[in-house]
Parts: sequence; C-alpha cells; structure tokens
Amino acid sequence: MRIGFIGLGTMGGAVAANLLHAGHQVTVWNRSPAKAEPLVAQGAVLAADAAGALRGDLLLSMLATEHAIAEIGLDGALLAHASKDLVHVNLATVSTEFARRIAGNHAARGVGYVASPVFGRAEAAAAGKLTVVAAGDEASVAKARPVLEAIGQRLVVVGSSPEQANLFKIAGNFMLASVIEMMGEALALVRKGGIDGNLFYQVMSGSLFAAPVFQGYGALIVAEKFEPAGFSLRLGLKDVSLALTSSAELTVPMPLASLLRDRFITLMAHGGEHLDWSAIGGLAADDAGEPPWPEADPPNARSS
Amino acid sequence: MRIGFIGLGTMGGAVAANLLHAGHQVTVWNRSPAKAEPLVAQGAVLAADAAGALRGDLLLSMLATEHAIAEIGLDGALLAHASKDLVHVNLATVSTEFARRIAGNHAARGVGYVASPVFGRAEAAAAGKLTVVAAGDEASVAKARPVLEAIGQRLVVVGSSPEQANLFKIAGNFMLASVIEMMGEALALVRKGGIDGNLFYQVMSGSLFAAPVFQGYGALIVAEKFEPAGFSLRLGLKDVSLALTSSAELTVPMPLASLLRDRFITLMAHGGEHLDWSAIGGLAADDAGEPPWPEADPPNARSS
Amino acid sequence: MRIGFIGLGTMGGAVAANLLHAGHQVTVWNRSPAKAEPLVAQGAVLAADAAGALRGDLLLSMLATEHAIAEIGLDGALLAHASKDLVHVNLATVSTEFARRIAGNHAARGVGYVASPVFGRAEAAAAGKLTVVAAGDEASVAKARPVLEAIGQRLVVVGSSPEQANLFKIAGNFMLASVIEMMGEALALVRKGGIDGNLFYQVMSGSLFAAPVFQGYGALIVAEKFEPAGFSLRLGLKDVSLALTSSAELTVPMPLASLLRDRFITLMAHGGEHLDWSAIGGLAADDAGEPPWPEADPPNARSS
Amino acid sequence: MRIGFIGLGTMGGAVAANLLHAGHQVTVWNRSPAKAEPLVAQGAVLAADAAGALRGDLLLSMLATEHAIAEIGLDGALLAHASKDLVHVNLATVSTEFARRIAGNHAARGVGYVASPVFGRAEAAAAGKLTVVAAGDEASVAKARPVLEAIGQRLVVVGSSPEQANLFKIAGNFMLASVIEMMGEALALVRKGGIDGNLFYQVMSGSLFAAPVFQGYGALIVAEKFEPAGFSLRLGLKDVSLALTSSAELTVPMPLASLLRDRFITLMAHGGEHLDWSAIGGLAADDAGEPPWPEADPPNARSS
Repeated sequence: MRIGFIGLGTMGGAVAANLLHAGHQVTVWNRSPAKAEPLVAQGAVLAADAAGALRGDLLLSMLATEHAIAEIGLDGALLAHASKDLVHVNLATVSTEFARRIAGNHAARGVGYVASPVFGRAEAAAAGKLTVVAAGDEASVAKARPVLEAIGQRLVVVGSSPEQANLFKIAGNFMLASVIEMMGEALALVRKGGIDGNLFYQVMSGSLFAAPVFQGYGALIVAEKFEPAGFSLRLGLKDVSLALTSSAELTVPMPLASLLRDRFITLMAHGGEHLDWSAIGGLAADDAGEPPWPEADPPNARSS
Repeated sequence: MRIGFIGLGTMGGAVAANLLHAGHQVTVWNRSPAKAEPLVAQGAVLAADAAGALRGDLLLSMLATEHAIAEIGLDGALLAHASKDLVHVNLATVSTEFARRIAGNHAARGVGYVASPVFGRAEAAAAGKLTVVAAGDEASVAKARPVLEAIGQRLVVVGSSPEQANLFKIAGNFMLASVIEMMGEALALVRKGGIDGNLFYQVMSGSLFAAPVFQGYGALIVAEKFEPAGFSLRLGLKDVSLALTSSAELTVPMPLASLLRDRFITLMAHGGEHLDWSAIGGLAADDAGEPPWPEADPPNARSS
Repeated sequence: MRIGFIGLGTMGGAVAANLLHAGHQVTVWNRSPAKAEPLVAQGAVLAADAAGALRGDLLLSMLATEHAIAEIGLDGALLAHASKDLVHVNLATVSTEFARRIAGNHAARGVGYVASPVFGRAEAAAAGKLTVVAAGDEASVAKARPVLEAIGQRLVVVGSSPEQANLFKIAGNFMLASVIEMMGEALALVRKGGIDGNLFYQVMSGSLFAAPVFQGYGALIVAEKFEPAGFSLRLGLKDVSLALTSSAELTVPMPLASLLRDRFITLMAHGGEHLDWSAIGGLAADDAGEPPWPEADPPNARSS
Repeated sequence: MRIGFIGLGTMGGAVAANLLHAGHQVTVWNRSPAKAEPLVAQGAVLAADAAGALRGDLLLSMLATEHAIAEIGLDGALLAHASKDLVHVNLATVSTEFARRIAGNHAARGVGYVASPVFGRAEAAAAGKLTVVAAGDEASVAKARPVLEAIGQRLVVVGSSPEQANLFKIAGNFMLASVIEMMGEALALVRKGGIDGNLFYQVMSGSLFAAPVFQGYGALIVAEKFEPAGFSLRLGLKDVSLALTSSAELTVPMPLASLLRDRFITLMAHGGEHLDWSAIGGLAADDAGEPPWPEADPPNARSS
C-alpha cells in the first residue's frame, strides 16, 4: 500500500520503520527534516512538503499535540491536497472535542478519517507490540485495518465515531496515572513505617498486582528514577486534562482524575516538567516529609 | 505440632482445615460452636472454652475485628492461660496501634506474638494459596514459620515489629480499593461515551493491566455484580480507615485513601453495607446519572 | 459621556439603566432586540447594528460567555468600526487566556481595553451597589473611571494587565462556591446528628461568619430553595472551570476547586442545570442518604 | 453559686477569672499547680486534689484532650466524689463518641452532665464574648444556664443529648478550617498572577466576606504570620479528625474535611505542629512553588 506518514518523533519513527519493513511504500514528512533521514536510508521517499504525504492510499500521522496538527493544517486546509479516497489515520492522543471537529472537517472534504491512538511506549512501537485502538466509519476502518494490524500486536475497534477511540485511550491513560499515585501513597506509608519499600513492591507486583503497569512503574517509583522521561510529566498533565475535559463534556465526575491533575501541576510548579510522569509517585513521600528528590539536586520538587 | 485455633469464619475455617490435612493436631474454639462442627468431623478437638485453645505450641486466631479480639480477652487477660512457650499468630487485619498494644501485652506475659495477616479470599485460603505476611521477633517467627508456609503459597517476613505486618497488609488493601475506584471512574467515562464497557475491561485487563486484581474486580464492576459479598463494604471501610489511622500516626497524607473513605461512607449511607466492597466501583456511574443499581432494587444506592 | 452598551441581559440592563439615570447618552444594542425596549423607553438610542455601539467615547459590554463575545466579533473584527479613542470596558467574567487574547486584539487595532468584571447579583446592579474590579493600561482606566464609579459602590483597580481583573473575579467566585460546599457539608453533618439546621445556620452566620455570603447562601441551603436560579449551576461550573484553567496556567494546584468542579458536574449529570449554583450545597446531604430533593420532583438529583 | 473548676489553661483560666469577677465562689484545681496561682490571688480556693473541685453546685472543666479528661478519672471514677446534685459542665471539644460514653457514666452515677463547648479564642473568653453551645437534659441545663450566660455573650442550647453540642462545635470548627483553606488557595492563585494579595484580601473581607473569620484568618494568611499559635496545628488536626469520626459514625461523607485532614498532616510531617492552624493556608502557595516559609527558617514546611 502507498502510505504517507507525518510526524517522525520517537513513536512515529518506529511505526514508520515497521511499515517499511512490512514492504509498504512509505512517503514521509516531518517539520524538522533530520528526523526523516534514517527512514529515507531505509527506503522511504521524502515528501517535498506536508501535502506530498497525502497522495497515497493512507495517511498516518503521529503528532504530539493538537496545536502541531493544526499548525500544518492537517485539521482542515491541508486536506485539500488529499488524493481521491485517502483515509487519514490519526495515531495521536487528542481530546474528544478536537476529534469531533477534525472528523467533521474530513467528512466535509470527502477524506476518510480513523482515530487510532496506541498503548505502548517507543520500545513496544519498535517491536510491533502496540495495542492499537481504532474508531471510524466502517469503510475507512476496513481500509486501514491491514496496516493497523501490522503495527501492533492487537487491534481493537471500539466504535464508529472516531472520538470514541480517543476516549478509550484517555480512560486507559487515566488508569496508568492512577496506578502511579496509588503506588506512591502506599510506598510512602510502608516506608515511613520502617518497611523495605522494595520488598513491598516485589510482593505486590508478584502476586495480585502482577501486571506490566505495576511492575514497570513500581520499579521506577521504588528506585526514585524519574529521569530520563519515558513519557514526560507535561504529556501526563495533557492526558489527565483530556480526561477531565471529557468528564465535563460527558458529565462524569472523576475525583481521582482531579487529584491526579493537582499532582501533575504541583510537580510542574516545582520545575519537574522534564521528569517522567511517574515522578508524581514521589509526591506522597514529599508530603510526608521524606522527599525522594535530594535537596541540592534539581528539579528539587517542593524544596524551595 | 499442637495448634490451637480461634475464629472459624469462612477464612479461619479454611485455614484450620488445611492444618488438619497437613497432619497437625488442632484444637478449635469459636464463639458460635456450630462453625466448629465441620472441623471436628475432620479430626479437630473442640476446646471447652477459649482458654483451651492456648495449651499447644501455637495459637492461631482469625477474628474479624479488634472488638472481637478484646471481647474474649485475647488482647490480654486470656493470655494468663497460655502454655509455656506459646506463640500466638494473629491472622487478622488490625490497626497498627492495636497491634502495638497487643504485642506489648503478650510480651508482658511472656507469650510470643506474630502478626500475620494474609492476602487472598476464602477460595485462596482453601487452596492454600494465600500470600502470608508476617512480622515479630525472630524466635517467634521461626517457630511459626512451618505453619505459615503450610497455609499459603508464599510467606513474606517484613519486619521484627508485629505492627509492620499489619501496615503492609493495610497498604496492600488500600491498593486493592484504589483499583476498584480507578476502574469505576474509567468505566463510567467510556460507557457514557458510548463504548462497550466490557470491551474496555477486556482490553485493559488483557494487556498492561493483566493482573488478578484487575481481572477479578473489573469483572464484578463491569457486570455490576456486587452481591453476594466476597469481602463486605463494611470491612472495606474498616480497612481504608485503618490506612488513614496509620497515615495520621506516621504523618503520611494519603488523598486517594481519603477519597476511598468517602466512597465507602456514601454507599453505607445508602444501605449498601451488605454489598461487596467492589460496589464503590459503581459510584462514579451513579454520580454520572447512570446508576448500576436498578431503581426499585435495594440497596438502591443514592436513589432515594 | 457618549456610551455604547452591548449585552442587555438582567445584569447588563440594570447597569445600562443606571448610566441613563446618571445622565449619560447611551446607545444600546442587543442580539434579541426586545431586551433593548425598556431602555429605549428610558431614553437610550437603539443602534442599528452592533457596530453602532462603538461610535462613542466608551463601549461597555456584558455578554455571558466568550462564545457570545466572539460571535459578534467583539474580540476582533467588530473593532474595525470603533471610533477614534474608543475604550472598551468588558464587564464579563472570562478566562485569563481569553482576556489576554482579546486585549492583544484591541491593542493591535488601537482600541483601549479595560477588563472590569463585577461582584454582585442583579439587585445589586440595579441599586448601584456592585463591587467593580478593573484592570488595564493607565489611560484607558482613567477614561473609564467615572463610569465605573457610577455603576458600583466601590471600584478597585487591581493591575495594569486586563486579565488580572478577570483572575481577581475568578478567585472571588471560587471563594463563593467554596462557602456553599462548606455549609452544605456542615449542615448535612449536624442535621443527621439531630440538630436543627436552621439554628446552626443562625448561630454561625450571626457570629464568626456574619457576612453576606454566609447569610445569603446559607439561607438558600437551609431552606433547600434552589429555584429560581439567581446564578445558574451552568454558570457556576463555567466559573470554577475558569479557576481551574487559571490554576493550570499559573501552576497553582487547587484541590478545593477540583472538588467543586466535581460537585457541579454531578448535579449537571442529574438534570440540575437550571438550579441555582447553591444547589451543590445539597449534595453532601444527598451523599448522606438524605437528599434535599424530593424523589418525584425534578431535577431529582441523584435519584435515578 | 459554688463552682469547681478543673483545667486552668489559657482558655480555662480566663473563664474561671470571669466567674470570680461575677461573684461566684470558685474552687480551682489544675494538674500543674502554678496555673492556679493567679486565680487564688483573685480569690479562688485551691482544692487539695481534683476531687475537691466536685463538692459544689457546678463543676466546670476545660481540659484539652479526651486523654487529659480520662487521666484524672473525670470520665468515670472521679465522679464518686461528687456532691449530691452536682452538674458537670464540660467546656472541652471532644468526640461525639466520647461525649456519649462520658454522659452515660455520669448518668450511671447520678451526676448531671452538660456538654458545653465554646466558640472564641482566649481574648474572647477574657472579655466574656464567647459563643457558648450547650446540650444536656433539661434540668441540668437549667441549673448551668446562669453561669453559661455569664461566661459568654450568647448561649445556644442545641439539644437534649450532650453529644449534640459537641457535634455543633465540631461542625463549626470544620467551617473555620475550610475558610483557611479557601483563602489559601485563592490567595496563592491571585498572587502568582501578579495581583497584590493584600488588596484581594481587603476587598473580599470588606464586602461579601465581611465577617470576623475572614478578617481574622485572612490577615494571618496574607501576612504569613503563623506564629505564635492562637490555636495550634495539632489541635486543628484533632478537630478535623473529630469531624471525620462523626462523619463516619453518622455516615455523612465530607470530602472537604478529608482534604483539610491531609493538609494538617502534611504540615505536621514538616515540623509545623507548633504553628497556628491557619498555617495550612500557606500550603497552596507552597504547592505552587512559592512557599510562605523562608527556606532557612524552621519549620521550613516542605523544604526538605
């Protein structure tokens, strides 16, 4: 299949490489062109401009924010350059409100649209082990299906309205952040009671909580290893804010999401934006007077 | 080994039966004697009174509340009847404050004391699959070790101070309740957005969250099956209250635990005390105007 | 002074009438023209279109939402019709982000801009008893000052950046909503303990809490009189959302504001959007199983 | 009237002095006798032991904690020394559970019991300006009434069950603490937005919020003057814990009280127990990265 690909960050680059390996003809474009070079070396065609990526059967995009999508006109004007029958598969995590608007703009211009956010970090993307969540009209999803199946280990179609895939992803990320908070509070408690935090972590994540999310984030919190960021605090705040926006739109009060938002903001206020989002798991200890951040060491959360 | 056993509820009865099967000589006592009968039928000796259970090498007790422990004097006066070298293994989940007090009383009377709460429901107890957490002085733990290894699949010694085992257990239960809340909020959100809640549950608990706690409680919340109670709302409130008591004692603020407490109280106020504690996972939907409890059906939470 | 006035709802109409009484020459415009009639009867000139209100020395506007402001172009395009030296005084409560944007647009077109939200309900506006908060560049504020002093009993200039007036107002409204929540929880507690809620209210609002906010909202909560709305739940949610938006922008975690947001959403989800915002003061009682809303009576909050 | 008085701290001493000035015959006792001296100098009789204070018509007690009450047996054994027809008026703020128990113990020994906590700080006590809240059986309240009217400016009888007076007081103190939190969050927000916090405080506490509670606590928070403590953080935590205990007992979820509890614990964990309880009003600023506590100055909250 002839596939255009816009947005070649860590995640996007890994997915695009997989498509090349799978034998697809991939035309790439990225705002900062250096990121396209490794893919061109692997056989991708470099588009002269963003519009050049809209000439194939499918366009995949993986841009970090709604702002980045809007800046290149991918939410509207750029679609004028789309080939007939193009289906755009948006892999980004965006708000349901934005998803609705962008879906409407595609429909108005006769371009197919599938929202398809993914679960998994960059390593999972590289290994083709993403969980891919998709929503869109039947024909568009059908056309995108083989490609979506290729980039992940599991494809889940969750609805016919694109925003539903985004809502699904947003709810999942809320759960991830909740696990971080929960482990942070539990660890702060047992540690201040003189119990070995690592033992607590090992027992819990080896029994009832024996899942990747506990094992992965638990290890980071126990080791207080919040740098380098696998997923940044800033993006964590973005995601929990998306959950709260949806919660208002759908009138579903989410007190735990509200708590998480305050945690992210607290750490942002203390210079922690470059940390991994699991760093909010250190705030309970900090509140308890036993901060995981050494005093003299930036970001020095809450040590003024 | 000659083992006394006090407290033959669902959990206690299952553990005592396992000890009999393992070839131990078990003397049982229970306030309501009917519960002792099945064990006597399996070879246990029935003690004439509670004191009769304190004549062996070990005493195991599994009483639901601190009040029940105090009522039979097991926190003090009853210990006067203990055999020389008796070690008391308390399997109950009690507060750290109570644990400290009862440990002191045992020491004053020369009776060994091991706090040893367990993770797992009744089926796990019957199958010998509990995770057993123990704390106490070295000699007492050594004496109890073979029995504790027999009743669970894993024994974890977490400290030399009995209350540490209770704190460990309390922190673990806090995490369980947190998972219920988290799933309740996420499910309420996706469902109100038109997504199949069961699909969301299957995907999440089959990937990043593939652990017993998500699979088990998630299934209950998705199916809105909160009766009969595997672990009651009342005991859930007790446990989160224990976490908060420890949080004050150790000065560790736990906002998520505070949220859980309010959830439990809300459901208690609506007549839900007989429900499984996973029923708090239905409150987010209820707040969102989509209660999982049918209107005309008790407990009819929040439907006045 | 020649004053244009756009937005003649309950509040706006009362302010405009005061300006007429004070002898100003007032040109009015409102989307639905019927609202302009009583003012024309009192001597106002009816503008043919919105642009017609921009020809004087000052333009005052009082539109309920950012959307309403944008729809008539008052955040940009409409300013092309402004008379030389026009100063626009925006009485609405808008987000700080919108305030910054609209201020920039005015500056770019050479139109003065003063943000000037007010504290007080419609009766206070009619009686000229508003507290008026203003921010903007010195010259614009100086020009608007006599008029702002005329419409309220107190004018407070809080900064030179217009958004600061909005932030001031947003923080004040957050405090109002907090008082409602606080009284709701306290009243639910004492009432369920068998104490006369009205007595509690009388004692508290007659001593330490002897301020209009307690006396006014307390009376509504005690009487469970949430209709008709003096200030609607929908606007209350808007305002607390503005506080949270500012809290994220300025990185100031506000857990109490988060709690309020969840309260407003809960009541919205139960059909309460037409109620007075003090109705969130009934949710604590509702959570306690003693809802202030009779079962069969809309909005029937939380009674499914 | 012949009045015994036990508990001569700042508050108790001021009340006892007022009783002397009003012409009553007062017999005093205090654990540390030095505190009794100024009263003896004013005409009080010093009792040889606590029992000596139970020989008159009324016994007033003002002890800081339930523990202090129990330690001298005033919840039980000491009552054996009571004169016939003695009525004990307990001015302390205690839990409703303790109130019930102590009331039962008095009834069993034929001693009258009135719970009568007061609103107001030491200066108000000295000036006879307390608001006095009382509950108890009719005869006991009638006997105590003249004295209760003498020590305050207002007496409010709230029920016939002593614990109701305590619940009333607990709910009032919860409202006080809520005001502190609310002002702390609002001030942190406006200040980080560049607004003069003192101006905000002056405007708000001079208009809608023109009540002593805002004026008094607001001044402390704006000035960041948390020492010396008028009412200590430790007692503040005690009071909000009493509210939460009652909330569980009466099944009334109080999320704002839960938030307050976490605030108090946070500051306790950072060495702030000697501060005035209004110091929790500085935590929002601290979370926002702008702590009111200078770095090098104890208690140095959250600066590790």
